Amino acid sequence: MEEHMSIIVFSGTVDKLLAASILTTGGAAMGLEVEVFLTTWGLEAFRKEGYKTNVRVSKDFEDYAPVMMEQMMVKKVPSWMENFQNAKEIGDVHIYACSMTMELFGMKLQDLEPIVDDVTGVAVFVERAKEGKITLFI
Amino acid sequence: MEEHMSIIVFSGTVDKLLAASILTTGGAAMGLEVEVFLTTWGLEAFRKEGYKTNVRVSKDFEDYAPVMMEQMMVKKVPSWMENFQNAKEIGDVHIYACSMTMELFGMKLQDLEPIVDDVTGVAVFVERAKEGKITLFI
Amino acid sequence: MEEHMSIIVFSGTVDKLLAASILTTGGAAMGLEVEVFLTTWGLEAFRKEGYKTNVRVSKDFEDYAPVMMEQMMVKKVPSWMENFQNAKEIGDVHIYACSMTMELFGMKLQDLEPIVDDVTGVAVFVERAKEGKITLFI
Repeated sequence: MEEHMSIIVFSGTVDKLLAASILTTGGAAMGLEVEVFLTTWGLEAFRKEGYKTNVRVSKDFEDYAPVMMEQMMVKKVPSWMENFQNAKEIGDVHIYACSMTMELFGMKLQDLEPIVDDVTGVAVFVERAKEGKITLFI
Repeated sequence: MEEHMSIIVFSGTVDKLLAASILTTGGAAMGLEVEVFLTTWGLEAFRKEGYKTNVRVSKDFEDYAPVMMEQMMVKKVPSWMENFQNAKEIGDVHIYACSMTMELFGMKLQDLEPIVDDVTGVAVFVERAKEGKITLFI
Repeated sequence: MEEHMSIIVFSGTVDKLLAASILTTGGAAMGLEVEVFLTTWGLEAFRKEGYKTNVRVSKDFEDYAPVMMEQMMVKKVPSWMENFQNAKEIGDVHIYACSMTMELFGMKLQDLEPIVDDVTGVAVFVERAKEGKITLFI
Protein backbone atom coordinates (compact mmCIF):
# COMPACT_ATOMS: atom_id res chain seq x y z
CA MET A 1 0.00 0.00 0.00
CA GLU A 2 1.15 3.50 -0.80
CA GLU A 3 2.42 5.50 2.19
CA HIS A 4 0.37 8.53 2.95
CA MET A 5 0.20 11.82 4.79
CA SER A 6 -2.90 13.60 6.14
CA ILE A 7 -3.01 17.33 6.68
CA ILE A 8 -5.88 19.14 8.37
CA VAL A 9 -5.86 22.75 7.21
CA PHE A 10 -7.80 24.66 9.84
CA SER A 11 -6.18 28.07 9.36
CA GLY A 12 -6.79 30.36 6.40
CA THR A 13 -3.91 32.82 6.73
CA VAL A 14 -1.48 33.11 3.84
CA ASP A 15 1.54 32.17 5.98
CA LYS A 16 -0.05 28.93 7.24
CA LEU A 17 -1.57 28.06 3.85
CA LEU A 18 1.90 28.50 2.37
CA ALA A 19 3.37 26.10 4.94
CA ALA A 20 0.56 23.59 4.30
CA SER A 21 1.03 23.82 0.53
CA ILE A 22 4.80 23.36 0.76
CA LEU A 23 4.38 20.30 2.99
CA THR A 24 1.83 18.93 0.51
CA THR A 25 4.21 19.51 -2.38
CA GLY A 26 7.08 18.00 -0.43
CA GLY A 27 5.03 14.92 0.43
CA ALA A 28 3.88 14.49 -3.17
CA ALA A 29 7.43 14.92 -4.48
CA MET A 30 8.63 12.21 -2.09
CA GLY A 31 6.04 9.80 -3.46
CA LEU A 32 3.54 9.93 -0.62
CA GLU A 33 -0.17 10.07 -1.22
CA VAL A 34 -1.31 13.32 0.42
CA GLU A 35 -4.80 14.04 1.70
CA VAL A 36 -5.68 17.57 2.69
CA PHE A 37 -8.77 18.10 4.84
CA LEU A 38 -10.02 21.68 4.80
CA THR A 39 -11.96 22.83 7.82
CA THR A 40 -13.20 26.11 9.32
CA TRP A 41 -11.00 29.03 8.12
CA GLY A 42 -8.94 26.73 5.96
CA LEU A 43 -12.07 25.87 4.02
CA GLU A 44 -13.18 29.50 3.91
CA ALA A 45 -9.86 30.24 2.15
CA PHE A 46 -10.85 27.91 -0.71
CA ARG A 47 -14.03 29.80 -1.58
CA LYS A 48 -14.08 30.51 -5.32
CA GLU A 49 -11.80 33.41 -6.25
CA GLY A 50 -11.08 34.04 -2.57
CA TYR A 51 -7.36 33.28 -2.79
CA LYS A 52 -6.87 36.15 -5.21
CA THR A 53 -7.55 38.76 -2.55
CA ASN A 54 -6.48 36.91 0.61
CA VAL A 55 -3.69 38.86 2.29
CA ARG A 56 -4.47 37.67 5.79
CA VAL A 57 -1.33 36.88 7.84
CA SER A 58 -1.24 35.49 11.40
CA LYS A 59 -2.09 38.39 13.75
CA ASP A 60 0.73 37.23 16.04
CA PHE A 61 3.21 38.36 13.39
CA GLU A 62 1.32 41.02 11.51
CA ASP A 63 4.19 43.49 11.98
CA TYR A 64 6.24 41.23 9.69
CA ALA A 65 3.46 40.82 7.12
CA PRO A 66 4.38 43.71 4.80
CA VAL A 67 8.02 42.54 4.54
CA MET A 68 6.92 38.93 4.00
CA MET A 69 4.45 39.86 1.26
CA GLU A 70 7.00 42.12 -0.43
CA GLN A 71 9.74 39.46 -0.35
CA MET A 72 7.34 36.91 -1.79
CA MET A 73 6.70 39.24 -4.72
CA VAL A 74 10.36 40.20 -5.20
CA LYS A 75 11.56 36.57 -5.01
CA LYS A 76 8.66 35.33 -7.13
CA VAL A 77 7.68 32.72 -4.52
CA PRO A 78 4.77 30.65 -5.89
CA SER A 79 1.52 31.28 -4.05
CA TRP A 80 -0.02 28.61 -1.83
CA MET A 81 -2.68 27.97 -4.49
CA GLU A 82 0.01 27.43 -7.14
CA ASN A 83 1.78 25.03 -4.79
CA PHE A 84 -1.37 22.98 -4.26
CA GLN A 85 -1.99 22.91 -8.03
CA ASN A 86 1.61 21.86 -8.63
CA ALA A 87 1.37 19.18 -5.93
CA LYS A 88 -1.66 17.71 -7.68
CA GLU A 89 0.24 17.60 -10.97
CA ILE A 90 3.33 15.86 -9.62
CA GLY A 91 1.73 13.42 -7.20
CA ASP A 92 -1.24 11.71 -5.68
CA VAL A 93 -2.93 14.58 -3.84
CA HIS A 94 -6.56 14.91 -2.82
CA ILE A 95 -8.22 17.90 -1.24
CA TYR A 96 -11.39 17.43 0.79
CA ALA A 97 -13.83 19.89 2.31
CA CYS A 98 -15.16 19.21 5.83
CA SER A 99 -18.89 18.53 5.63
CA MET A 100 -19.65 20.11 9.01
CA THR A 101 -18.01 23.40 8.07
CA MET A 102 -19.86 23.34 4.73
CA GLU A 103 -23.13 23.04 6.61
CA LEU A 104 -22.22 25.62 9.24
CA PHE A 105 -21.15 28.20 6.68
CA GLY A 106 -23.90 27.24 4.21
CA MET A 107 -21.45 26.32 1.44
CA LYS A 108 -21.87 24.05 -1.55
CA LEU A 109 -19.09 22.29 -3.46
CA GLN A 110 -19.60 24.66 -6.39
CA ASP A 111 -18.83 27.61 -4.09
CA LEU A 112 -15.29 26.30 -3.73
CA GLU A 113 -12.24 26.41 -5.98
CA PRO A 114 -12.26 23.48 -8.44
CA ILE A 115 -9.06 22.17 -6.84
CA VAL A 116 -11.27 20.82 -4.03
CA ASP A 117 -12.12 17.22 -4.96
CA ASP A 118 -14.99 16.36 -2.68
CA VAL A 119 -16.79 16.80 0.63
CA THR A 120 -16.10 14.35 3.48
CA GLY A 121 -16.72 13.95 7.17
CA VAL A 122 -14.47 13.52 10.18
CA ALA A 123 -14.84 9.71 10.05
CA VAL A 124 -13.04 9.57 6.72
CA PHE A 125 -10.26 11.73 8.09
CA VAL A 126 -9.80 9.45 11.13
CA GLU A 127 -9.97 6.31 8.98
CA ARG A 128 -7.31 7.59 6.62
CA ALA A 129 -5.08 9.37 9.11
CA LYS A 130 -4.73 6.30 11.30
CA GLU A 131 -3.20 4.38 8.40
CA GLY A 132 -0.94 7.28 7.47
CA LYS A 133 2.69 7.98 8.22
CA ILE A 134 2.36 11.68 8.96
CA THR A 135 -0.62 13.63 10.32
CA LEU A 136 -0.56 17.37 10.86
CA PHE A 137 -3.04 20.00 12.08
CA ILE A 138 -2.20 23.40 10.63
CA MET B 1 -4.07 -3.49 21.75
CA GLU B 2 -6.64 -0.82 21.07
CA GLU B 3 -5.60 1.77 18.49
CA HIS B 4 -5.39 5.24 19.86
CA MET B 5 -5.18 8.93 19.06
CA SER B 6 -3.51 11.68 21.11
CA ILE B 7 -4.56 15.30 20.87
CA ILE B 8 -2.73 18.16 22.55
CA VAL B 9 -5.17 21.02 23.00
CA PHE B 10 -3.01 24.12 23.41
CA SER B 11 -5.50 26.70 22.17
CA GLY B 12 -8.57 27.87 24.06
CA THR B 13 -10.56 29.60 21.34
CA VAL B 14 -14.05 28.32 20.58
CA ASP B 15 -13.24 27.57 16.94
CA LYS B 16 -10.20 25.42 17.78
CA LEU B 17 -11.90 23.75 20.75
CA LEU B 18 -14.76 22.87 18.42
CA ALA B 19 -12.33 21.29 15.95
CA ALA B 20 -10.61 19.38 18.78
CA SER B 21 -13.92 18.15 20.17
CA ILE B 22 -15.17 17.01 16.75
CA LEU B 23 -11.93 15.10 16.12
CA THR B 24 -12.25 13.53 19.57
CA THR B 25 -15.85 12.52 18.87
CA GLY B 26 -14.88 11.22 15.43
CA GLY B 27 -12.04 9.16 16.88
CA ALA B 28 -14.25 7.74 19.63
CA ALA B 29 -17.01 6.90 17.13
CA MET B 30 -14.48 5.02 14.99
CA GLY B 31 -13.47 2.89 17.95
CA LEU B 32 -10.18 4.56 18.79
CA GLU B 33 -9.12 5.28 22.32
CA VAL B 34 -8.65 9.06 22.47
CA GLU B 35 -6.44 10.92 24.91
CA VAL B 36 -6.72 14.67 25.12
CA PHE B 37 -3.89 16.58 26.80
CA LEU B 38 -4.87 20.08 27.83
CA THR B 39 -2.10 22.63 28.07
CA THR B 40 -1.71 26.41 28.38
CA TRP B 41 -4.82 28.17 26.95
CA GLY B 42 -6.51 24.86 26.24
CA LEU B 43 -6.35 24.07 29.95
CA GLU B 44 -7.47 27.58 30.89
CA ALA B 45 -10.62 26.93 28.81
CA PHE B 46 -11.52 24.00 31.10
CA ARG B 47 -11.63 26.10 34.26
CA LYS B 48 -14.89 25.42 36.09
CA GLU B 49 -17.84 27.25 34.48
CA GLY B 50 -15.45 28.97 32.07
CA TYR B 51 -16.90 27.39 28.94
CA LYS B 52 -20.24 29.05 29.60
CA THR B 53 -18.90 32.50 28.87
CA ASN B 54 -16.06 31.71 26.46
CA VAL B 55 -16.74 33.48 23.15
CA ARG B 56 -13.09 33.81 22.17
CA VAL B 57 -12.47 33.14 18.47
CA SER B 58 -9.07 33.14 16.70
CA LYS B 59 -8.02 36.78 16.25
CA ASP B 60 -6.92 35.92 12.71
CA PHE B 61 -10.57 35.48 11.78
CA GLU B 62 -12.37 37.65 14.30
CA ASP B 63 -14.25 39.44 11.49
CA TYR B 64 -16.03 36.12 10.84
CA ALA B 65 -16.73 35.44 14.53
CA PRO B 66 -20.20 37.04 14.77
CA VAL B 67 -21.47 35.09 11.73
CA MET B 68 -19.94 31.86 13.03
CA MET B 69 -21.46 32.26 16.49
CA GLU B 70 -24.85 33.17 15.03
CA GLN B 71 -24.85 30.20 12.63
CA MET B 72 -23.91 27.87 15.50
CA MET B 73 -26.97 29.11 17.40
CA VAL B 74 -29.31 29.00 14.41
CA LYS B 75 -28.18 25.53 13.36
CA LYS B 76 -28.11 24.28 16.94
CA VAL B 77 -24.53 23.03 16.59
CA PRO B 78 -23.51 21.29 19.84
CA SER B 79 -20.91 23.24 21.80
CA TRP B 80 -17.35 21.91 22.13
CA MET B 81 -18.07 20.95 25.75
CA GLU B 82 -21.14 18.95 24.68
CA ASN B 83 -19.02 17.22 22.04
CA PHE B 84 -16.39 16.22 24.59
CA GLN B 85 -19.11 14.94 26.95
CA ASN B 86 -20.70 13.01 24.11
CA ALA B 87 -17.33 11.57 23.06
CA LYS B 88 -16.82 10.26 26.60
CA GLU B 89 -20.21 8.58 26.50
CA ILE B 90 -19.76 6.84 23.19
CA GLY B 91 -16.13 5.79 23.46
CA ASP B 92 -12.91 5.42 25.39
CA VAL B 93 -11.90 9.04 25.92
CA HIS B 94 -9.65 10.49 28.60
CA ILE B 95 -8.92 14.13 29.23
CA TYR B 96 -5.73 15.10 31.04
CA ALA B 97 -4.48 18.40 32.42
CA CYS B 98 -0.80 19.31 31.90
CA SER B 99 0.92 19.42 35.28
CA MET B 100 3.30 22.23 34.29
CA THR B 101 0.47 24.53 33.24
CA MET B 102 -1.37 23.70 36.48
CA GLU B 103 1.65 24.79 38.45
CA LEU B 104 2.30 27.88 36.33
CA PHE B 105 -1.29 29.11 36.59
CA GLY B 106 -1.68 27.94 40.21
CA MET B 107 -4.58 25.59 39.38
CA LYS B 108 -5.84 22.55 41.25
CA LEU B 109 -7.86 19.67 39.75
CA GLN B 110 -10.98 20.90 41.56
CA ASP B 111 -10.67 24.24 39.73
CA LEU B 112 -11.37 22.42 36.48
CA GLU B 113 -14.52 21.06 34.88
CA PRO B 114 -15.27 17.52 36.14
CA ILE B 115 -14.82 16.21 32.60
CA VAL B 116 -11.04 16.45 33.20
CA ASP B 117 -9.94 13.03 34.47
CA ASP B 118 -6.53 13.67 35.91
CA VAL B 119 -3.27 15.63 35.88
CA THR B 120 -0.28 14.26 33.96
CA GLY B 121 3.13 15.33 32.73
CA VAL B 122 4.73 15.52 29.31
CA ALA B 123 6.38 12.09 29.77
CA VAL B 124 2.98 10.39 29.80
CA PHE B 125 1.99 12.25 26.65
CA VAL B 126 5.17 11.15 24.84
CA GLU B 127 4.84 7.57 26.07
CA ARG B 128 1.25 7.34 24.85
CA ALA B 129 1.57 9.37 21.66
CA LYS B 130 4.45 7.26 20.36
CA GLU B 131 2.26 4.17 20.45
CA GLY B 132 -0.66 5.99 18.87
CA LYS B 133 -1.91 6.10 15.31
CA ILE B 134 -2.70 9.81 15.17
CA THR B 135 -1.15 12.69 17.09
CA LEU B 136 -2.28 16.28 16.72
CA PHE B 137 -1.32 19.64 18.25
CA ILE B 138 -4.25 22.04 18.15
CA MET C 1 16.62 1.94 14.92
CA GLU C 2 16.06 4.66 17.47
CA GLU C 3 12.48 5.88 17.76
CA HIS C 4 12.02 9.48 16.84
CA MET C 5 9.78 12.50 16.98
CA SER C 6 9.55 15.38 14.49
CA ILE C 7 8.33 18.82 15.47
CA ILE C 8 7.70 21.62 12.98
CA VAL C 9 7.92 24.91 14.86
CA PHE C 10 6.03 27.42 12.71
CA SER C 11 5.03 29.86 15.45
CA GLY C 12 7.39 32.24 17.20
CA THR C 13 5.35 33.29 20.22
CA VAL C 14 6.76 32.60 23.66
CA ASP C 15 3.81 30.44 24.72
CA LYS C 16 4.06 28.14 21.69
CA LEU C 17 7.87 28.04 21.79
CA LEU C 18 7.60 27.03 25.44
CA ALA C 19 5.23 24.18 24.53
CA ALA C 20 7.54 23.09 21.69
CA SER C 21 10.59 23.17 23.95
CA ILE C 22 8.86 21.18 26.71
CA LEU C 23 7.74 18.54 24.21
CA THR C 24 11.30 18.40 22.86
CA THR C 25 12.71 17.99 26.38
CA GLY C 26 10.07 15.37 27.20
CA GLY C 27 10.87 13.42 24.05
CA ALA C 28 14.62 13.57 24.70
CA ALA C 29 14.15 12.51 28.33
CA MET C 30 12.12 9.51 27.17
CA GLY C 31 14.94 8.40 24.91
CA LEU C 32 13.49 9.51 21.59
CA GLU C 33 15.58 11.19 18.95
CA VAL C 34 13.95 14.58 18.41
CA GLU C 35 14.18 16.67 15.25
CA VAL C 36 12.92 20.21 15.34
CA PHE C 37 12.25 21.94 12.00
CA LEU C 38 12.06 25.72 12.30
CA THR C 39 9.99 27.52 9.71
CA THR C 40 8.51 30.98 9.14
CA TRP C 41 7.97 32.74 12.53
CA GLY C 42 9.51 29.85 14.40
CA LEU C 43 12.74 30.40 12.51
CA GLU C 44 12.51 34.17 12.97
CA ALA C 45 12.46 33.50 16.74
CA PHE C 46 15.90 31.84 16.50
CA ARG C 47 17.64 34.91 15.03
CA LYS C 48 20.79 35.65 17.03
CA GLU C 49 19.99 37.37 20.34
CA GLY C 50 16.32 37.56 19.38
CA TYR C 51 15.08 35.32 22.18
CA LYS C 52 16.37 37.80 24.77
CA THR C 53 13.77 40.39 23.86
CA ASN C 54 10.93 38.21 22.54
CA VAL C 55 7.84 38.78 24.68
CA ARG C 56 5.36 37.95 21.94
CA VAL C 57 2.39 35.89 23.19
CA SER C 58 -0.49 34.53 21.06
CA LYS C 59 -2.81 37.46 20.30
CA ASP C 60 -5.77 35.20 21.04
CA PHE C 61 -4.75 35.24 24.71
CA GLU C 62 -2.87 38.51 25.03
CA ASP C 63 -5.05 39.53 27.97
CA TYR C 64 -3.43 36.67 29.93
CA ALA C 65 0.12 37.51 28.77
CA PRO C 66 1.13 39.80 31.66
CA VAL C 67 0.05 37.23 34.29
CA MET C 68 1.77 34.42 32.40
CA MET C 69 5.02 36.33 32.04
CA GLU C 70 4.94 37.37 35.70
CA GLN C 71 4.26 33.82 36.92
CA MET C 72 7.11 32.52 34.76
CA MET C 73 9.45 34.96 36.49
CA VAL C 74 8.09 34.32 40.00
CA LYS C 75 8.20 30.54 39.58
CA LYS C 76 11.55 30.66 37.82
CA VAL C 77 10.26 28.62 34.87
CA PRO C 78 13.15 27.98 32.47
CA SER C 79 12.80 29.87 29.20
CA TRP C 80 12.11 28.02 25.97
CA MET C 81 15.70 28.58 24.87
CA GLU C 82 16.99 27.03 28.11
CA ASN C 83 14.67 24.07 27.56
CA PHE C 84 16.00 23.50 24.04
CA GLN C 85 19.59 23.76 25.32
CA ASN C 86 18.81 21.34 28.13
CA ALA C 87 17.11 18.93 25.70
CA LYS C 88 20.28 18.89 23.57
CA GLU C 89 22.36 18.06 26.63
CA ILE C 90 20.23 15.18 27.84
CA GLY C 91 19.29 13.56 24.54
CA ASP C 92 19.62 13.21 20.82
CA VAL C 93 18.12 16.48 19.61
CA HIS C 94 18.71 18.27 16.32
CA ILE C 95 17.39 21.65 15.30
CA TYR C 96 17.08 22.50 11.61
CA ALA C 97 16.26 25.72 9.80
CA CYS C 98 13.89 25.58 6.81
CA SER C 99 15.82 26.51 3.66
CA MET C 100 12.83 28.20 2.00
CA THR C 101 12.26 30.53 4.95
CA MET C 102 16.00 31.32 5.03
CA GLU C 103 15.83 32.36 1.40
CA LEU C 104 12.57 34.27 1.78
CA PHE C 105 13.80 36.25 4.79
CA GLY C 106 17.37 36.56 3.42
CA MET C 107 18.92 34.75 6.40
CA LYS C 108 22.24 32.91 6.68
CA LEU C 109 23.09 30.20 9.22
CA GLN C 110 25.37 32.64 11.06
CA ASP C 111 22.38 34.96 11.61
CA LEU C 112 20.82 32.29 13.81
CA GLU C 113 21.45 31.17 17.38
CA PRO C 114 24.26 28.56 17.50
CA ILE C 115 21.76 26.01 18.83
CA VAL C 116 20.52 25.62 15.21
CA ASP C 117 22.48 22.72 13.70
CA ASP C 118 21.92 23.09 10.02
CA VAL C 119 19.67 24.17 7.14
CA THR C 120 17.42 21.60 5.45
CA GLY C 121 14.52 21.42 3.04
CA VAL C 122 11.02 20.03 3.25
CA ALA C 123 12.10 16.73 1.65
CA VAL C 124 14.28 15.91 4.65
CA PHE C 125 11.42 16.68 6.99
CA VAL C 126 9.04 14.37 5.10
CA GLU C 127 11.67 11.61 4.87
CA ARG C 128 12.33 11.75 8.60
CA ALA C 129 8.79 12.37 9.82
CA LYS C 130 7.37 9.40 7.96
CA GLU C 131 9.67 7.08 9.89
CA GLY C 132 8.89 8.80 13.18
CA LYS C 133 6.53 7.91 15.99
CA ILE C 134 5.22 11.41 16.68
CA THR C 135 4.89 14.38 14.32
CA LEU C 136 3.60 17.76 15.43
CA PHE C 137 3.03 21.15 13.79
CA ILE C 138 3.22 23.93 16.37
